Amino acid sequence: VHEKVSAAQRLIELYGLPLTGAETRSYTNHILSYDQTRRTPKWVAEHLSNEKLLGRADRKHCKFKPDPNIPALFTAHNDDYLGSGWSRGHMAPAADNKFSEKSMAETFYLSNIIPQNYENNAGFWNRLEMYCRELTERFSDVWVISGPLTLPQVYQDGKKMVSYQLIGKDDVAVPTHLYKVILVRKDPSAEPLALGAFIVPNAPISFEHHLKEYQVSLTDLQRMSGLTFFPKIEKAEGLKNLCLVDSCELMDFKRFTLYITSRKVVSAKTLAKLEKMMSDLEEAGITPDNYLAKLYQEKKQELLKKESPQNQLWWIKT
Amino acid sequence: VHEKVSAAQRLIELYGLPLTGAETRSYTNHILSYDQTRRTPKWVAEHLSNEKLLGRADRKHCKFKPDPNIPALFTAHNDDYLGSGWSRGHMAPAADNKFSEKSMAETFYLSNIIPQNYENNAGFWNRLEMYCRELTERFSDVWVISGPLTLPQVYQDGKKMVSYQLIGKDDVAVPTHLYKVILVRKDPSAEPLALGAFIVPNAPISFEHHLKEYQVSLTDLQRMSGLTFFPKIEKAEGLKNLCLVDSCELMDFKRFTLYITSRKVVSAKTLAKLEKMMSDLEEAGITPDNYLAKLYQEKKQELLKKESPQNQLWWIKT
Ligand SMILES: [Mg+2]
Ligand SMILES: [Mg+2]
Repeated sequence: VHEKVSAAQRLIELYGLPLTGAETRSYTNHILSYDQTRRTPKWVAEHLSNEKLLGRADRKHCKFKPDPNIPALFTAHNDDYLGSGWSRGHMAPAADNKFSEKSMAETFYLSNIIPQNYENNAGFWNRLEMYCRELTERFSDVWVISGPLTLPQVYQDGKKMVSYQLIGKDDVAVPTHLYKVILVRKDPSAEPLALGAFIVPNAPISFEHHLKEYQVSLTDLQRMSGLTFFPKIEKAEGLKNLCLVDSCELMDFKRFTLYITSRKVVSAKTLAKLEKMMSDLEEAGITPDNYLAKLYQEKKQELLKKESPQNQLWWIKT
Repeated sequence: VHEKVSAAQRLIELYGLPLTGAETRSYTNHILSYDQTRRTPKWVAEHLSNEKLLGRADRKHCKFKPDPNIPALFTAHNDDYLGSGWSRGHMAPAADNKFSEKSMAETFYLSNIIPQNYENNAGFWNRLEMYCRELTERFSDVWVISGPLTLPQVYQDGKKMVSYQLIGKDDVAVPTHLYKVILVRKDPSAEPLALGAFIVPNAPISFEHHLKEYQVSLTDLQRMSGLTFFPKIEKAEGLKNLCLVDSCELMDFKRFTLYITSRKVVSAKTLAKLEKMMSDLEEAGITPDNYLAKLYQEKKQELLKKESPQNQLWWIKT
């Protein structure tokens, strides 16, 4: 009987079974499974450690581009995103890859990107990514898995509906929510591990909201995503709750604004723009800390020199 | 460098990468990939031949049930469907498995089932399945791949949205459309093969509509489904169009009604119900063919005997 069955199965797959393209794809510093229907990743897995966050790789040298490993019929293109009203949101963040130009460049493949609300991307989600990096100061190993979700809404008549937008010629699916699963350990011998699972709406989230509001049980996230996370962990052994072991507090408004202003100051192109950044900060009621004050003075000297009349004269003469 | 990369990747997957559960699952006479998020199959592949359609396996002995191979968190249950307004629609049809009780029973696993519009299931889709079986009379091998789709709608403001319902406690996704890809060959040496790809709305479809209206190119179906079908076929070698090689004509209203009435007659439980079936047929303007007339006479004798006073008396005495 068994041979007969196998013969039947061999005949069914004579010309090949359908390919979903969901196989695991490995990059220098992240691994993902791609969703050929939605033209986004299903999940992206990374490992963070203190040393990987050191380095000089700079996103200025990176360009979003189609992943050459994804079949042409199923890849997203930059044109799908441009003018769509949605930003290109990294799942494995560029900034987790300071140690390697190559691995940072790979995070700009569109296989690692989902259509993300601009404010969410620059704000809450950005702060969540920073929190993950901050965890490497207190834990020797940090694993992060990120991905998109399309969650249902229940209507007045009791009907449960999933609705999501498609953008661009390639019909890239805009997720309603994003998830992150964070797993940490103090050192290789220190188990049990601690885990936090979070679901965040793909929408602006203000500073009044705390990360803990978005925490869900791993089982609930698994049911909603259809995924099984960290299958090799013996869950019975008792995973600790990340938000009890650590703070789960994201950077607050003042520190975050100082951080963002620092980054802007470093890349300021004119004196006028530099001064505008600092007056915006003052208007927000925030006094520059020593770090920002120093960056500002350095940049000011640099721009003063560049914009001095004799320098400009020199440019004209050339 | 290569070793360093591998070490990084090994570390990422230390506790296992997320499982999608989309791996190929083989049954006696069908193979499928399951969608753990939607609690339905993604695709179901079968091979049909004349001999497999012969046999006495009967769906009366089959029961819809959760597939024991699907993790509890991700399986559908009968309760999800009951009272939902949607029928349990087979992807690999029960009737393709007359040769084996076991393989027929396996088609009743909910891993092979999608929420299907009742009329579509009993009508157009049923006739499409009959057409696939009929192809085994003219082709020695027939491959069929079936599955659900959730296709977008374009709204007045130009927004493209995917919307679909979830039913039951397990959030089973109701597809907006169903697809079938049919591949045939005359005999093992006779290539090129012929192929037809079809997308049908998950809604009632009347007899005025022809199968050809729902034909799409294989590339379009691949783009919409995110799947690559029959990857081992060299498409360049020229697949013929099934609807040019064969008729792509489904059973017409008269023949279909005679067929359905025959099935009802065979399972009629009372004389009154039997007579009602025949008068309904007359009202539809259809004269019984010889086959149905014979079935009717046989059933009538059987029921007359069963319902005769002395038979009923016998029952009372027991
Ligand atoms: Mg981002
Ligand atoms: Mg059916």
